[in-house]
Amino acid sequence: MKQRKPVRSEMGWSTPETITVRGYDLPNQLLGKVDLGGMAFLEITGRLPSEREAEVFNALLITLVEHGMTPQAIASRLISICSPEAMQASVAAGLLGVGSVFAGGSEQIARILQTALDGKAKDADLGAIAQAIVEDHTARKAPIPGIGHPLHKPIDPRTPVLFGIAEKNGFRGRYVALLEAIAATAEKRLNRTLPINATGAIGAVLSELGFPWRICRGVAIIGRAVGLVGHIAEELRNPIAYEIYERTELEVLTNATAKP
Amino acid sequence: MKQRKPVRSEMGWSTPETITVRGYDLPNQLLGKVDLGGMAFLEITGRLPSEREAEVFNALLITLVEHGMTPQAIASRLISICSPEAMQASVAAGLLGVGSVFAGGSEQIARILQTALDGKAKDADLGAIAQAIVEDHTARKAPIPGIGHPLHKPIDPRTPVLFGIAEKNGFRGRYVALLEAIAATAEKRLNRTLPINATGAIGAVLSELGFPWRICRGVAIIGRAVGLVGHIAEELRNPIAYEIYERTELEVLTNATAKP
Amino acid sequence: MKQRKPVRSEMGWSTPETITVRGYDLPNQLLGKVDLGGMAFLEITGRLPSEREAEVFNALLITLVEHGMTPQAIASRLISICSPEAMQASVAAGLLGVGSVFAGGSEQIARILQTALDGKAKDADLGAIAQAIVEDHTARKAPIPGIGHPLHKPIDPRTPVLFGIAEKNGFRGRYVALLEAIAATAEKRLNRTLPINATGAIGAVLSELGFPWRICRGVAIIGRAVGLVGHIAEELRNPIAYEIYERTELEVLTNATAKP
Amino acid sequence: MKQRKPVRSEMGWSTPETITVRGYDLPNQLLGKVDLGGMAFLEITGRLPSEREAEVFNALLITLVEHGMTPQAIASRLISICSPEAMQASVAAGLLGVGSVFAGGSEQIARILQTALDGKAKDADLGAIAQAIVEDHTARKAPIPGIGHPLHKPIDPRTPVLFGIAEKNGFRGRYVALLEAIAATAEKRLNRTLPINATGAIGAVLSELGFPWRICRGVAIIGRAVGLVGHIAEELRNPIAYEIYERTELEVLTNATAKP
Repeated sequence: MKQRKPVRSEMGWSTPETITVRGYDLPNQLLGKVDLGGMAFLEITGRLPSEREAEVFNALLITLVEHGMTPQAIASRLISICSPEAMQASVAAGLLGVGSVFAGGSEQIARILQTALDGKAKDADLGAIAQAIVEDHTARKAPIPGIGHPLHKPIDPRTPVLFGIAEKNGFRGRYVALLEAIAATAEKRLNRTLPINATGAIGAVLSELGFPWRICRGVAIIGRAVGLVGHIAEELRNPIAYEIYERTELEVLTNATAKP
Repeated sequence: MKQRKPVRSEMGWSTPETITVRGYDLPNQLLGKVDLGGMAFLEITGRLPSEREAEVFNALLITLVEHGMTPQAIASRLISICSPEAMQASVAAGLLGVGSVFAGGSEQIARILQTALDGKAKDADLGAIAQAIVEDHTARKAPIPGIGHPLHKPIDPRTPVLFGIAEKNGFRGRYVALLEAIAATAEKRLNRTLPINATGAIGAVLSELGFPWRICRGVAIIGRAVGLVGHIAEELRNPIAYEIYERTELEVLTNATAKP
Repeated sequence: MKQRKPVRSEMGWSTPETITVRGYDLPNQLLGKVDLGGMAFLEITGRLPSEREAEVFNALLITLVEHGMTPQAIASRLISICSPEAMQASVAAGLLGVGSVFAGGSEQIARILQTALDGKAKDADLGAIAQAIVEDHTARKAPIPGIGHPLHKPIDPRTPVLFGIAEKNGFRGRYVALLEAIAATAEKRLNRTLPINATGAIGAVLSELGFPWRICRGVAIIGRAVGLVGHIAEELRNPIAYEIYERTELEVLTNATAKP
Repeated sequence: MKQRKPVRSEMGWSTPETITVRGYDLPNQLLGKVDLGGMAFLEITGRLPSEREAEVFNALLITLVEHGMTPQAIASRLISICSPEAMQASVAAGLLGVGSVFAGGSEQIARILQTALDGKAKDADLGAIAQAIVEDHTARKAPIPGIGHPLHKPIDPRTPVLFGIAEKNGFRGRYVALLEAIAATAEKRLNRTLPINATGAIGAVLSELGFPWRICRGVAIIGRAVGLVGHIAEELRNPIAYEIYERTELEVLTNATAKP
């Protein structure tokens, strides 16, 4: 018979008198002393951030909170008119859209950057590494994640600010440099404007902070959860989902070829 | 034909060069200047919090981030082994558990408190109001939300700290007082220890901050989204979901009455 | 220390050579012999349906599969353009809308009907029971679930057909009669056209089939899961979600008061 | 300004008197005449199945309904104790696990089979095609989807039955033959027992039925939605989720290294 392994977790536990989170006494050591961004850092990494880490990490976290009427925001609002008694269902519905296309891509670029520099010497030739990455994607006709944006051209206005905040706090290192090399190489190779977009910048700076690529999408997920609660709040004050639904239904009826 | 109404939202919009969030220039006015808790306040209320509001609101937000191996955390971990390529699905799965039983109840107590004090004079008799609320619930055999906890007795250690932070910042008012009156009345009436629990405290202090009851569950949803990303991160480092699944499956097979 | 209870389930189990579902050998006793509707009946009730039960149950199951461009269908399509690599996320997003407002209401009317007739004699006065239910709802200003429809007037065309199928197979009994009495009483009392709608009919006929009210929403969930896969399939052939999203975003930008 | 395109859908529409689904009058042409499996075929393909197609398709649909206490089933049950008022949330939580690992893989094998045979002559050398596919996966160290099973060895008992039902109805063609060639080649190449598993068989037979690979996961999603409603129904009759949760929480507390 297979030997069962023990189930362990260091996230937290409770006794009647205490609540412990990652080794801290929640009521006495965290409440009123740590903000939500610091708490997110603690949850993911197991330790509280330094002041510099907190400033950088909060900037990354708030970047993706709100980008207007995204498909995710519309989906959350539509579900909120169906299940008004279950706000968690509305937020979850929109959150399910933090996939490969909108906001979820920081995982992919962080994977490329971290894989490329894994075990490489400090003075590795970033230009050559970038060249290889661009050639590999071009050969496979695969888009390079983290660069290019359908709207924000010639630059994504969030990127230089995020890189500036990273630099100020000592987190602008070779992951950022490699991504810049990739973008520059790709622009030349493909003869197109390919700015580093916000998810690219987030993937690079999270790599500087030491986050493994597999968890990077979590930053977008946390941000969007905040934003989607905001959209539900506005939908409660000023409902628009019903209008979007009714217009769509009416247009479909009007355009239907096989009329009843 | 029905007149269509315009679709409006003030959450945010983008042009090629700018990203506006609730009237602020995201890259230049928010990034590096506002933390995630402040951003959540802005998204929900439409304005940035004062320093005092930010301290209180961050405390409320981090309270429900982590409570150890909740059913929500286990569900997120189980889905992460099924759909490892879609972290948003794992987080959403756990988030769907922010319902009436675990963590979602601040909405219910905020509703009771806000409905009870709506239009009431400043010197309204809170004891009488509490009495009526307790009697109404007792008559309907309905549990009173926000008081009592299966584990944390005689008090929930988060509650006095949250009320203390609220008081320090000028947000301990009559919503908190009414909830305290309800708990005291219910303890006497039902002859049981019924401490104000953390969701109750959150519902009361959110009411002090001016949050409508319909949006109060959002604070638990945001907190849990952070916590569930933390659990996925630990699951990636130290997997336990497969063990939980296999033990359960094995026990079900062992206990099955209609063996194959 | 609390005594742990054994974890039991009779849903199914597997050995290397066999797969057992609710006591049946899946490959040899179910595949090719039972259709999806019969399988759903088996899963929920623990036994295969009679031919009559299968006819009635399949009719109930297919009733809510498709109702055109519902908010749920639009939400699923919007998420499919965000997370095209995870179809389960798109279907789940739409499914989250099977709540109190669209399609999920059969649970509520089944609860009312089953509670009202629980322990009542076979010749109980349905008119008086209906009267009491209508008065109770009117007094609480609560809408009566299962009757009335924003579009289908004066009758919901699905209702007489479902009741006919139920009658033909011996499942038109006093739950259906009570719902009819409720609708008639409410129409008189409120002086409005209040046809029994499809979810009402489903709740009543499921009660005739012996389904506990707590599980009745499952019939809508199963039906909508089928329908939402259909919508994703059409979205893959003929995409419209991007258009719905872009129009909404554009209109919000155009109508924004605080222009950048 | 960008030209907006019309929003069209042929799924269904309603008028006060009629409900049309894929061109059929729902109450009069479908209710009582089509079962749930046929309705699923209609929704996805736009036409009703022949008797032979219906037999094959229903067999595929019911194959993945129930596989005992999967991670998906446990997740659904855990969420049902958190949000008992929102069954759709519980089912959606489990459904989110229909990803790459459990039950969602028919999409991947269908993609391989359909891509490999696209435009190929009827007498193409399947052995050579299979060889190329196996070599490609071996070179990339990528597992071949649709073959191999952790439990069901030396064969998955569902596969021969599904292929038999397909054959009986005229749907055992070259997609099935190619998958058999792939499995045989891989077994020889990797010197391991690699039976065609149920999701592989489903992907191959769906390809025979003409389903595009992008929609194949939908069959698993529909099946699991049915099965998860079954698990919720059993959880309501015989609750086990709380026990699973409490044991896990207790073990985590017992094993915690940083005790409070």
